[in-house]
Amino acid sequence: MGSMQRTIDWADGAVVIIDQTALPREFRLLRLETVDELISAIQRLAVRGAPALGAAGALGVALSALRHGGDVGAVEADAERVARARPTAVNLGWGVRRALAKLPGGPESVLAEAKAVLDEDERTNRQASANAAELILARCPRRPLRLLTHCNAGRLATVGWGTALGVVWHLHEAGQIEYVLADETRPLLQGSRLTAWELAEAGVPYRVLPDSAAASAIARGMVDCVVVGADRIAANGDVANKIGTYPLALAADRHGVPFVVVAPQSTVDAELPDGAGIVLEERADAEVTSAGGTPVAPAGAKAFNPAFDVTPAELVLAVVTEHGRFP
Amino acid sequence: MGSMQRTIDWADGAVVIIDQTALPREFRLLRLETVDELISAIQRLAVRGAPALGAAGALGVALSALRHGGDVGAVEADAERVARARPTAVNLGWGVRRALAKLPGGPESVLAEAKAVLDEDERTNRQASANAAELILARCPRRPLRLLTHCNAGRLATVGWGTALGVVWHLHEAGQIEYVLADETRPLLQGSRLTAWELAEAGVPYRVLPDSAAASAIARGMVDCVVVGADRIAANGDVANKIGTYPLALAADRHGVPFVVVAPQSTVDAELPDGAGIVLEERADAEVTSAGGTPVAPAGAKAFNPAFDVTPAELVLAVVTEHGRFP
Repeated sequence: MGSMQRTIDWADGAVVIIDQTALPREFRLLRLETVDELISAIQRLAVRGAPALGAAGALGVALSALRHGGDVGAVEADAERVARARPTAVNLGWGVRRALAKLPGGPESVLAEAKAVLDEDERTNRQASANAAELILARCPRRPLRLLTHCNAGRLATVGWGTALGVVWHLHEAGQIEYVLADETRPLLQGSRLTAWELAEAGVPYRVLPDSAAASAIARGMVDCVVVGADRIAANGDVANKIGTYPLALAADRHGVPFVVVAPQSTVDAELPDGAGIVLEERADAEVTSAGGTPVAPAGAKAFNPAFDVTPAELVLAVVTEHGRFP
Repeated sequence: MGSMQRTIDWADGAVVIIDQTALPREFRLLRLETVDELISAIQRLAVRGAPALGAAGALGVALSALRHGGDVGAVEADAERVARARPTAVNLGWGVRRALAKLPGGPESVLAEAKAVLDEDERTNRQASANAAELILARCPRRPLRLLTHCNAGRLATVGWGTALGVVWHLHEAGQIEYVLADETRPLLQGSRLTAWELAEAGVPYRVLPDSAAASAIARGMVDCVVVGADRIAANGDVANKIGTYPLALAADRHGVPFVVVAPQSTVDAELPDGAGIVLEERADAEVTSAGGTPVAPAGAKAFNPAFDVTPAELVLAVVTEHGRFP
């Protein structure tokens, strides 16, 4: 899958992304020529996923540096805006800082660092997911394996390859996947729109399910292992990930099903002692109260719409990075 | 709320229902003149909710008896088809049996019994929800109360008044409700479409939320009590209810939040020792893979779409009926 179109890339002086708001209906590339266009794409989730946001952060600084040249203040202000485009994924700020550190070397130096972030991403994810696949094969005796995942932690959440779905690609290559259950992941349906699209493309048998049916699938013995990505991991191993991850971990725990988190090391926020300090983005009411532009709730209905939740480390069998099990 | 249009009623020789597929967009009545029309309405959830299905079962037998007169075989065959229109709610078969028992007395006797089922329903639900409100006031010290509910267990799930939402009406009349959180309840959104509509009509402050965000609301201390209805209750207290009830009970249990089930006694299936024997309806893929007719998953995507799950009795503080705590 390495030769596929990258989820986010640099081409001809601009950032090019796969527009994830158009999938699975349409595969469309978007060209982002300014920092404002990039921030807008991040905020409406045209590009999303913690590792991909790391790349977006670095490329945003490159866009700004190439535009503002030696105006360090202007680039730093842009970098700050990019880093704050969404609050929860730690990788965004990590990518920004990596690129910004090269600013003294000039705009081309910043761009080279951003490209290095892109190149490292797929390598890192391949290694992290290979480590997790090995752990899962060791822990789950049933063959072939039946995995359940939440949201999208595939190539569309990264520059390429993917984290939790990267595990699926490794195991599928080895003939070890019976099927994958993909939580649809309300409200924005990254599971049915993006994960299902990736699984279909790769020829992996799958079914989508309402998030609230995952506990039933686990209770009925339909799942050997739950595998998810992460948006921010605290020093104690608490995991912030897409809303719905925490109840999934509770169900897995109740039924003795291993719960594995796969993420690049850049997702770890070592300065954060535990999950209590993670800022959890709250998104617009309309994501919940309407569907495809049509209201599904009474006029004026308000929503509780946190984008992420925190799963305590004690419910997680292992957080696996490119370096192996964390911590 | 007693003078409101009933969710299901008998008028001028036909069954009249509030079409729940049209809410909250439109309040529309449907007139069902044949058993086939009634079965179709039950299957596409134009009328749904265990207590309302009890009424539908009884009225279906009345429709058949009035048409077939003394042809007992024809009425029994129709009754069997109505009872099997959906497999999980025990009330459907209960309503059918109540009406069918009056067949020896003639069609008018069957109709009178069906009307008695309707008349009893609101009285029964008012009493069951009053009992539950009393229990909750005794168990939850915070005032006013913050409740969370799933699916729709309001007047639209019954002939009138409601079960879990009946608790809200009692407590709201007493000035004891701060707000209600209404799980949207995928895939058919009975929470955001129906429960939110009822709460808005009654002037109760509320928010809708993705089902998968309920665990976060509970973990953040936003919920004093979870209150839901039921579709079938086994003799040991295991509860079959709308998909997503079980993970909600797991989250409530983890955080010490009381989990209360409110249902008429007719929901109890005394012949069923525990939840393992409950037949759980599986519904069409398209309910999950498309939204409002638009695909949200790749072409050909399959779904795991059980309509109900089973919550073990040990996670339920109390099942409350019109007779008090069960068993």
